[in-house]
Amino acid sequence: MKKRIFVTLKPGVLDPQGRAVHHALDGMGFDGVNDVRIGRLIELDVADTVTDEALGEMCEKLLANTVIENYRIEGSE
Amino acid sequence: MKKRIFVTLKPGVLDPQGRAVHHALDGMGFDGVNDVRIGRLIELDVADTVTDEALGEMCEKLLANTVIENYRIEGSE
Repeated sequence: MKKRIFVTLKPGVLDPQGRAVHHALDGMGFDGVNDVRIGRLIELDVADTVTDEALGEMCEKLLANTVIENYRIEGSE
Repeated sequence: MKKRIFVTLKPGVLDPQGRAVHHALDGMGFDGVNDVRIGRLIELDVADTVTDEALGEMCEKLLANTVIENYRIEGSE
């Protein structure tokens, strides 16, 4: 079973990586870019027995820094 | 207008980061995890005038290393 976890910085948390990409895009002449935020996409191949609660626990303990990051679990297509 | 770009390693490309996470999950006692692949989620806030072609060009030139990575553009909800 494929699951996807999106880990993104919480609103208001400074994103230096996103800012650097934004700056580079501007420098390359790409207009119309207002903001860039970089997050992580974690694709898991797990047994059917693995519950969303277990996935949540994986996020809380390892995959996301819940002080500054949000995570969202999605079954992938 | 919000757009999301998913950048993932091409199948067959070794993912040391994913392997390290997988190893850590095993070590923490999480059973049933068969594979872990880590990618990037790039959230862009762009003007309505920015086309998917322009976004594709941003990916080709900066956001993705198309030798080893695939990218997919999605309008975010």
